[in-house]
Amino acid sequence: MGESEKISVGIIGASGYGGVQLVRLLQEHPLVDIVYLGGKGSAGQTYAEIYPHLGHAVDLTIEPIDTEAIASRCQVVFLGLPNGLACDIAPPLIAKGCKVLDLSADYRFKNLETYSSWYNKDRSDLDTAKTAVYGLPELYREEIKSASLIGCPGCYPTASLMALSPLLKQGLILPETTIIDAKSGTSGGGRQAKTHLLLAEAEGSFGAYGVAKHRHTPEIEQISSDLAGHEVKVQFTPHLIPMVRGILSTVYATLRDPGLVREDLLTIYSAFYRSSPFVKILPNGLYPQTKWACGTNLCYLGIETDPRTDRVIVLSAIDNLIKGQAGQAVQCLNIMMGWEETLGLPQLCFYP
Amino acid sequence: MGESEKISVGIIGASGYGGVQLVRLLQEHPLVDIVYLGGKGSAGQTYAEIYPHLGHAVDLTIEPIDTEAIASRCQVVFLGLPNGLACDIAPPLIAKGCKVLDLSADYRFKNLETYSSWYNKDRSDLDTAKTAVYGLPELYREEIKSASLIGCPGCYPTASLMALSPLLKQGLILPETTIIDAKSGTSGGGRQAKTHLLLAEAEGSFGAYGVAKHRHTPEIEQISSDLAGHEVKVQFTPHLIPMVRGILSTVYATLRDPGLVREDLLTIYSAFYRSSPFVKILPNGLYPQTKWACGTNLCYLGIETDPRTDRVIVLSAIDNLIKGQAGQAVQCLNIMMGWEETLGLPQLCFYP
Amino acid sequence: MGESEKISVGIIGASGYGGVQLVRLLQEHPLVDIVYLGGKGSAGQTYAEIYPHLGHAVDLTIEPIDTEAIASRCQVVFLGLPNGLACDIAPPLIAKGCKVLDLSADYRFKNLETYSSWYNKDRSDLDTAKTAVYGLPELYREEIKSASLIGCPGCYPTASLMALSPLLKQGLILPETTIIDAKSGTSGGGRQAKTHLLLAEAEGSFGAYGVAKHRHTPEIEQISSDLAGHEVKVQFTPHLIPMVRGILSTVYATLRDPGLVREDLLTIYSAFYRSSPFVKILPNGLYPQTKWACGTNLCYLGIETDPRTDRVIVLSAIDNLIKGQAGQAVQCLNIMMGWEETLGLPQLCFYP
Amino acid sequence: MGESEKISVGIIGASGYGGVQLVRLLQEHPLVDIVYLGGKGSAGQTYAEIYPHLGHAVDLTIEPIDTEAIASRCQVVFLGLPNGLACDIAPPLIAKGCKVLDLSADYRFKNLETYSSWYNKDRSDLDTAKTAVYGLPELYREEIKSASLIGCPGCYPTASLMALSPLLKQGLILPETTIIDAKSGTSGGGRQAKTHLLLAEAEGSFGAYGVAKHRHTPEIEQISSDLAGHEVKVQFTPHLIPMVRGILSTVYATLRDPGLVREDLLTIYSAFYRSSPFVKILPNGLYPQTKWACGTNLCYLGIETDPRTDRVIVLSAIDNLIKGQAGQAVQCLNIMMGWEETLGLPQLCFYP
Repeated sequence: MGESEKISVGIIGASGYGGVQLVRLLQEHPLVDIVYLGGKGSAGQTYAEIYPHLGHAVDLTIEPIDTEAIASRCQVVFLGLPNGLACDIAPPLIAKGCKVLDLSADYRFKNLETYSSWYNKDRSDLDTAKTAVYGLPELYREEIKSASLIGCPGCYPTASLMALSPLLKQGLILPETTIIDAKSGTSGGGRQAKTHLLLAEAEGSFGAYGVAKHRHTPEIEQISSDLAGHEVKVQFTPHLIPMVRGILSTVYATLRDPGLVREDLLTIYSAFYRSSPFVKILPNGLYPQTKWACGTNLCYLGIETDPRTDRVIVLSAIDNLIKGQAGQAVQCLNIMMGWEETLGLPQLCFYP
Repeated sequence: MGESEKISVGIIGASGYGGVQLVRLLQEHPLVDIVYLGGKGSAGQTYAEIYPHLGHAVDLTIEPIDTEAIASRCQVVFLGLPNGLACDIAPPLIAKGCKVLDLSADYRFKNLETYSSWYNKDRSDLDTAKTAVYGLPELYREEIKSASLIGCPGCYPTASLMALSPLLKQGLILPETTIIDAKSGTSGGGRQAKTHLLLAEAEGSFGAYGVAKHRHTPEIEQISSDLAGHEVKVQFTPHLIPMVRGILSTVYATLRDPGLVREDLLTIYSAFYRSSPFVKILPNGLYPQTKWACGTNLCYLGIETDPRTDRVIVLSAIDNLIKGQAGQAVQCLNIMMGWEETLGLPQLCFYP
Repeated sequence: MGESEKISVGIIGASGYGGVQLVRLLQEHPLVDIVYLGGKGSAGQTYAEIYPHLGHAVDLTIEPIDTEAIASRCQVVFLGLPNGLACDIAPPLIAKGCKVLDLSADYRFKNLETYSSWYNKDRSDLDTAKTAVYGLPELYREEIKSASLIGCPGCYPTASLMALSPLLKQGLILPETTIIDAKSGTSGGGRQAKTHLLLAEAEGSFGAYGVAKHRHTPEIEQISSDLAGHEVKVQFTPHLIPMVRGILSTVYATLRDPGLVREDLLTIYSAFYRSSPFVKILPNGLYPQTKWACGTNLCYLGIETDPRTDRVIVLSAIDNLIKGQAGQAVQCLNIMMGWEETLGLPQLCFYP
Repeated sequence: MGESEKISVGIIGASGYGGVQLVRLLQEHPLVDIVYLGGKGSAGQTYAEIYPHLGHAVDLTIEPIDTEAIASRCQVVFLGLPNGLACDIAPPLIAKGCKVLDLSADYRFKNLETYSSWYNKDRSDLDTAKTAVYGLPELYREEIKSASLIGCPGCYPTASLMALSPLLKQGLILPETTIIDAKSGTSGGGRQAKTHLLLAEAEGSFGAYGVAKHRHTPEIEQISSDLAGHEVKVQFTPHLIPMVRGILSTVYATLRDPGLVREDLLTIYSAFYRSSPFVKILPNGLYPQTKWACGTNLCYLGIETDPRTDRVIVLSAIDNLIKGQAGQAVQCLNIMMGWEETLGLPQLCFYP
């Protein structure tokens, strides 16, 4: 495929962790040219000033967010802004013919009332929002193919739904028994300086936050309900791990049929994810380490049943900034453009 | 109290992490003299050779494990050996009049068949085992007072039972819904060199192990059943955190009475632990960080209810090597000797 | 000694890391009552709101910085404020009869022009500054005894001067060959949220900063010159270690007499620090780990000579927040009050 | 270039960290097929048993080390064995026509007596050793082109020599003033379980080792002497950083001409490394973070002069397992084969 077939891409919110992952991945993507880096506070800075390690590879300056200019230069736009901003920027971009992939929560919800009640923001872009597709390719690959607007999933929902989906879709569990105990590296908190994310505070410590009220709960429930065909409520508890990258979700649910054993579930999961190149189901008795997924777009799944309690326990590991964010967005881009789904997406971590 | 009233104490298995915590704590305990350090592989080494940072404080050499010699010199003996060794050493020591506090699993079980089936070791010390008291002072303070043999709890059971006990004792939850998602620093794996505990392997990673089959499960179930008054089964999943010290247990259960709210439970927990100086119940909406407990014998508890799911979620943080091991043993010693329960036990961490 | 003999102490700047160490140490000091916590941004907050883990131990509220009120209630005042503020607060406190221990750089310099040129602040408190004593007890114990104002040393200078002093004092090295390659945990950067101190940025990374221009250079040189009896210039390079606490200084210098061997220097160092209870000189061939000093007021020194190059290499490890800051201030207090130098100061770390 | 032009490669010592980096890099190298994984203790295991995260990518079993079989199947062989083994394996492989790249110390020394005295091993392969080229492409690119046997540099020497070479080659410093204060992540210690490399021991700590006697000293001196044209002695001190990957070398030396300023040296370094695609010289006042190099074959250099002391300070950051080991070996392979030097070698890290 020739140089001329590359598409022009803009990244808005390029100075954050989502942004720098997108820059990193798209810089090496064979069919993409990054032509616009946009930001608010960082406008005017060269990218090398913000991320000196990329000085040799990226020779761009952050520009102000000007939808007119963006649309005139970009075929595809990634939005990596804080929640509540994309819903103002995406509509004009779409109207001007851009494809938009939004990494915030703004376009993840079918029901904007759910969004508004959890994110404290009223919305007037209902028509645009209706066209958005939830960007989890393993579940919505077909819809993504023809979408113009992708609401990329949150990091916790990605890890959790990868673990839960086969169980819900096939009706194998009692949905109301679902408990998701999730743990994330601190990069999930973003690059803004917050005291509790300082190394001096977070290193050598582990704790929960947002117990019974984290905003990823309704997102997980929306997709879970879609898969189950009826409303599902889950218990979701996030924790911070003293490390940079990675999420592990430990998912518990009671099996509808206590006769199911691990081997059965391995078969079911393998079938469910047969066409999903980034899902790696671990053999009998192996559980994933988050580090195995670091720097890749992979999701590792480990599955266990407990005959003493009739429960299934699924362990799901991803890199929160790649499969949980920027990599998944690129995966969606590949699908939207009709390219190989794995194009430009790493599958081998650097271990250790 | 005069110098002459100090008791003479031996620590067997002094070269491991349990051992060095005991040495550290007892070295500063006002009523204890360490007179015997025993070990197998390390016999003949000075303590400063094993732990150079203590060279200025501890001038003792590890001696072979000779029960005759130990009993002749020690009134109290702490055993910090691998599982399956204490059951050979404790009986002669007790027969010779020593009080024994065992940090291994050997004397935690009322039912030795349970022990044998989970620890693959047959036992012939039934008479001795029958006299052992489970060394969790917050639950068995009275029994500990008059005990000669203490089976000190495991680190995970300590954290988990502190969270669960008020709920089970008062019949507030449906016991079979109990899920314990526990996380520990790697020092819980001991000081023996194992590949998966290398910094290069464990740092920057998080994963589960022993899913549905960890040996702390029957221990938690034994005490839970005792508290509930009937057999209780729990789901217990341990994980390794990339840090040295600390355990967080996240405990989930369905409330029998969905009308109970957080404030009710805070009241119930405060009453339950009223006479327990090491338990700190956090006010509304605060959840513990493991680091707060590091270097102390404290257990911090945070409590939440979820009206959406009728569940209670309790978060319990301890230092796995102190409240989860050596500190708790010293707490038991204090109670056995009729001393102030907090004697020689730190209550203020060095933060950050 | 009776309760009535306790002194009343205030801590200004109590919300920072220096402050919380002082609170932690003085809370357990047998002859001190903390009666005033002062702060600027944090005034009005309870201490438990800032540091929840101390909620059970410290029942005080941060008050505004009012020198009148402070002096009326406190015999001794610790100042833990950013550089450039103590020089406005100390003079009125001293005038009203308080003893003052300042943890900032304001009173470390004999020559205020040196201070002004490195800290960009003009000073008008020359008379007060002249009375200040540099609070490194191992070098200035006699002067500290009768001082009313202590300029507590910086963390890097403490570690570095402990390593260098015997060499300079005895004229054993060529001073101009001195190179100090120092490394610190990130808590040295304080509790204010700065991007480069986020766990996500600092974890898993190591780098230098302030090369050839760090403000601790003139401080080290002032004391080095005082010891050598002539002006000394040193090369000082600080680095950030991905961990919370601890400093290691690696100090290099060319020996004046190449015939000196390690054993000679061990003897010289032992004699030099004979009356210094917190200095621990490691035997032949042992080098300190920063973790050995964590949570203690100790300084571990390891010494090596290289006959191939005629250099001496000294390794010095401290806890930057204790011996490098708050603990050293308490050590000075003990000396000023005529108490045992080690009172209330921990000497045993929790290892691992 | 067609599939048929790929070369067949063997990796001996594939289970260690050097081995797994080679597997990782060569698996994605467009002109290489891995056809043989060899090992001693690990022979018979599948690679997925040793490194489960690679189960989906590498379908090979470790075979015994049989030079006959290796030579019959491989054109190029990488040796990643402990020191002292390659010197028995390389000669027969070379005799049978293989090109050999050895990651151990065995072929780094021109003078085998130096090797023998530092590595305690007598050698009988003098003829083979004479043909070996030191595999630091930035210095010996021409010699590597035609070599059959490469002695790949140690990790510390790589970082240190990248910093030192322009200074030595151009005679800009007084060589005897050179001090190299080097710091490494713990993966440099390999995958064998050693107590001091446990996370519980190494995390949260920093210390020196091998002071004045580390085996990388003669290696650095050999190349330094070669560059300077006369014998050079350096002071080299390694330290362990509590992190997995990365080396920072802080190099000090006195300038021959004190008039030289940073800008001069930036110009000189840029010229020296003009044809070296992996060397990135940072602009004025920027110093490298090791994390910038992680997962890449890059070496970042930061340069400072100190007019107060007439010294130059150079900071050099690499990934110890890539540019410091496996990546550099692949870089040599590319040069030996006449391929693009950067082929298959990552240049963009995943930050943070």
